Amino acid sequence: MSELFVKTLREDPADAEVASHKLLVRAGYIRRSAPGIYTWLPLGLRVLDKIEAIVRQEMNRIGGQEVRFPALLPAEPYQATGRWEDYGPNMFRLRDRKEAEMLLAPTHEEVFTLLVKDMCSSYKDLPLMLYQIQTKYRDEARPRAGLLRGREFIMKDAYSFDVDDSGLDRAYEAQREAYQRIFDRLGLDVVIVSAMSGAMGGSRSEEFLHSTPVGEDTYARSAGGYAANIEAVTAVPPPALPTDGQPQALVTPTPGADTIESLVKLANSDHARAGEPWSAADTLKNVVIAAVHPSGERELIVLGLPGDREVDMSRLAAALYPAEAEPAGDSDFATHPELVRGFIGPAVLGANAPDPAQGVRYFLDPRVVAGTAWITGANAVDQHVFNMVAGRDFLAAGQDGQPVIDAAEIRAGDAAPDGSGPLEMARGIELGHIFQLGRKYAEALDLRVLDQNGKRATVTMGSYGIGVTRALAALAEKCHDGRGLIWPAHVAPAHVHVVATGKDPGIFAAAVGLAEDLEEAGLEVLYDDRPRESAGVKFADAELLGIPYILVVGRGLASGVVELKDRRAGTTAEIPAASAVSQVSEVVNTALRAGL
Amino acid sequence: MSELFVKTLREDPADAEVASHKLLVRAGYIRRSAPGIYTWLPLGLRVLDKIEAIVRQEMNRIGGQEVRFPALLPAEPYQATGRWEDYGPNMFRLRDRKEAEMLLAPTHEEVFTLLVKDMCSSYKDLPLMLYQIQTKYRDEARPRAGLLRGREFIMKDAYSFDVDDSGLDRAYEAQREAYQRIFDRLGLDVVIVSAMSGAMGGSRSEEFLHSTPVGEDTYARSAGGYAANIEAVTAVPPPALPTDGQPQALVTPTPGADTIESLVKLANSDHARAGEPWSAADTLKNVVIAAVHPSGERELIVLGLPGDREVDMSRLAAALYPAEAEPAGDSDFATHPELVRGFIGPAVLGANAPDPAQGVRYFLDPRVVAGTAWITGANAVDQHVFNMVAGRDFLAAGQDGQPVIDAAEIRAGDAAPDGSGPLEMARGIELGHIFQLGRKYAEALDLRVLDQNGKRATVTMGSYGIGVTRALAALAEKCHDGRGLIWPAHVAPAHVHVVATGKDPGIFAAAVGLAEDLEEAGLEVLYDDRPRESAGVKFADAELLGIPYILVVGRGLASGVVELKDRRAGTTAEIPAASAVSQVSEVVNTALRAGL
Repeated sequence: MSELFVKTLREDPADAEVASHKLLVRAGYIRRSAPGIYTWLPLGLRVLDKIEAIVRQEMNRIGGQEVRFPALLPAEPYQATGRWEDYGPNMFRLRDRKEAEMLLAPTHEEVFTLLVKDMCSSYKDLPLMLYQIQTKYRDEARPRAGLLRGREFIMKDAYSFDVDDSGLDRAYEAQREAYQRIFDRLGLDVVIVSAMSGAMGGSRSEEFLHSTPVGEDTYARSAGGYAANIEAVTAVPPPALPTDGQPQALVTPTPGADTIESLVKLANSDHARAGEPWSAADTLKNVVIAAVHPSGERELIVLGLPGDREVDMSRLAAALYPAEAEPAGDSDFATHPELVRGFIGPAVLGANAPDPAQGVRYFLDPRVVAGTAWITGANAVDQHVFNMVAGRDFLAAGQDGQPVIDAAEIRAGDAAPDGSGPLEMARGIELGHIFQLGRKYAEALDLRVLDQNGKRATVTMGSYGIGVTRALAALAEKCHDGRGLIWPAHVAPAHVHVVATGKDPGIFAAAVGLAEDLEEAGLEVLYDDRPRESAGVKFADAELLGIPYILVVGRGLASGVVELKDRRAGTTAEIPAASAVSQVSEVVNTALRAGL
Repeated sequence: MSELFVKTLREDPADAEVASHKLLVRAGYIRRSAPGIYTWLPLGLRVLDKIEAIVRQEMNRIGGQEVRFPALLPAEPYQATGRWEDYGPNMFRLRDRKEAEMLLAPTHEEVFTLLVKDMCSSYKDLPLMLYQIQTKYRDEARPRAGLLRGREFIMKDAYSFDVDDSGLDRAYEAQREAYQRIFDRLGLDVVIVSAMSGAMGGSRSEEFLHSTPVGEDTYARSAGGYAANIEAVTAVPPPALPTDGQPQALVTPTPGADTIESLVKLANSDHARAGEPWSAADTLKNVVIAAVHPSGERELIVLGLPGDREVDMSRLAAALYPAEAEPAGDSDFATHPELVRGFIGPAVLGANAPDPAQGVRYFLDPRVVAGTAWITGANAVDQHVFNMVAGRDFLAAGQDGQPVIDAAEIRAGDAAPDGSGPLEMARGIELGHIFQLGRKYAEALDLRVLDQNGKRATVTMGSYGIGVTRALAALAEKCHDGRGLIWPAHVAPAHVHVVATGKDPGIFAAAVGLAEDLEEAGLEVLYDDRPRESAGVKFADAELLGIPYILVVGRGLASGVVELKDRRAGTTAEIPAASAVSQVSEVVNTALRAGL
């Protein structure tokens, strides 16, 4: 400890909100270099190496072959697939001295595809599974939570190459199982949820989420087994109704009713209906959104959804990808006076509107099915229209030219789309993401091989990522208490922290001897040799650092005993100094075998 | 082999000039991604990992603690030390989405200094030795020779921090010895040569060069033990002579003598002197050079040197650093008509010239000492001046305001500056470079600690680099023959390459068994299981790949023998199949122990 390059901090860093960020900085594992960019200190690097080794073993076990691509790549392949544009400001871009456009890769689909194109020409070269563990870059708008959302981070990214869909299925399943083993070995409980493909493209995709309230991802699950990232949950639309025989739409003065709440109140007081009272679910809210395309183009769109649901901005972002979404502002409305704030309605929206707002696309929530009747805006101040029937008075979701955006909030109690019961919500950290990319990249970059019939067949691909530095942070989130970190033995920077207390040189000599004997027995030992620090400071440091077993050599030595603290169990036991090495070895080896 | 991600090439890559580049690409160790930027394939990564492990062990042995900095860094610290500007176009620069200036680090002195400033406050925290093995970036103007001069490469960079000079000396010596052990273990002969500090600054500095004709660095050595990079060799000036009593300078028509050769010829024919004839060494050549400063400013300078020596552009570049040097061109001369090409002389140059060229600094070679007399230009077409005496007619080297640039070529036979005899020249690959930085960075970034007297003392630093990927290339340069690579066993991607030949399933079964038994015995085995390839193709591949021992299982198996080829020795021996595992183990383990 007197030589180790570590400086523990008693105070949390000013910008830290989550436990992993606070503790990894305070315990001297990482240090911030720039927003979202960290330096790894000796203790942190040891844990990182151990986590990488587990990932590597499991990748090798399923036949993955390790390679390492540059982080700095030419732009061309990403231009060929369109991702150069799609990534927008999230990608670090630069020009070299010859003005060639380059990027710091956020992920490597393009260049893996090109490498395999370069190296493989026949179905006999496949199936192939390649991976790397490597530094990735993403220029996050809001880097936060330490390692949980950084701009430079370490990822394991693997890619599978197959001639046919069944091969891709096998590769996907092998990765899925390897991920389960990896997170199991790391001691991280994960939930596998259906996910959106986002920037990757492709069809099937699942995320591995570590469930924790500090997670950035929200997911929904049902008791019946459904689980999906909130962005991937699909709404369950009601059945369509006949439009015949429904009352005519009727424009009605609604003075001052420029919110859903005031509209419902006024409807019930002035236009009460038989049976149940009007509710927000009877209103059709038309929300104006600015979609900012990667090119920088700003397009206004309107989303019509039931008035009892808000737009979920993350679901909206996923639905509009690669465009980014933001609420429309004053200047947007200024260019479209026909969009009367608080009173916007379908009569000026959509392809079949009598006098549509020009250049404004209209989207509907999937719940707005044909035959449903709505109270909605009449496009004039203090005017609404009752009995506006989808499919009769405006185009309902799924009808000609009227696309659906499924971006309304999902609420606890909503039905799971697979009929497996009501949904509940939880939060998690995305640790892994696996994708069946299919042929998107192979087609864009012309990766074809000769198949068994001698014909050129486009290769089908999968892409499989694990956030290695994020997994480390997730472990820190899970494994700590009020005093500090508590690492599982097999990823801890050391197995045993030997602490000598007091001033007696005999105690220090005994502690050194024990530390050496423990190392001799194959354990990794950190020895606190500092002669001038108080026992209190040493204990506080040891608890903060989080080595799972602390062996205290102090006054008890005179009576032949030392103390073994088990940080995870929270217990302290006196053990005979004479058998300390064998007892500690036994305890540590048991923990290592159990992965605790 | 049927599953390994490798594709051997029979042809050299078009852009490859050196053996390491050709063979590493042809054998499927690396693949070019962009100019000077490579992807590591499975075989290459294995060798790289083994080399890194050796470097890591030796750094740990001298108390180095491993950390890992980001490759992507903020500009500020580099602006504080001036290197943001000094690096000029050699540094990859970018702006993040918030327009903050960032760089891809070519080396990390600044941020190590800041980290230690952040973590250490007292002399008790020192001495400290930190290192990292990490990807570095340098936007080379002319990336070449594969891994030997790349734009993305792996370096081990270590930094020492001490309170006093003797501490720095100890750290420097420890690194120096560690380097000798590392290169010794890698099997790379190195010459340690004095070096220029260049971009690093600081005082003492040495390079570790692997001697090879393909090396980019030229160094000079004497039989008496002197060794220096050619950039760091200092000329041995002759003794100064009295100026009194020398003949007057005399302007003389020299029609058509616009080269040194024609001038000497004319001098000997029309102005012969008693004793030895005029030679080029009697002429003072004034070479006009454009120094391009990092700011982009272009400054003309003139270097006066004996006419028998050329300017060595690499020595000149080192002398002018951080400016870059290039020969002056027509447009440069157009702005200075007083510089008459072919006839430039000191009368228009230097601070004491009667009518000096404005804004043109004049430098002299160290050999131009006071009292030496020269034939040199008279600043008019077809005019030279004889008996132009340094220190009388123009300012000689070292005299007031007249700086020296020691950039003339060094030639075999020149005297070593330490008097140890004549120099001879050789070429080498720079594998390591160690620097005593002193307090340059600590002062620029205010790294101070409390010393034993409670006073704030500026820390003194050293910086120690090894080009890890370059060391791998140097090994490939050294360890190959006409058929392919021949790795030393301890860095080879595997120890034994088992090759089954023919079509007989019994042979393949026996080969698999041997491969498994060899692995069981702790060896790393690559097994060529390909049933359809001819023995010729398999042998060619095995020899190209360079695994040092090839065990051939073929027809001889019927008579109970297999063949063991030792690639390094070039020998082939029949050995009994029954004892093959023990015999091969013995051979490999002997090689591993010997580091062969």
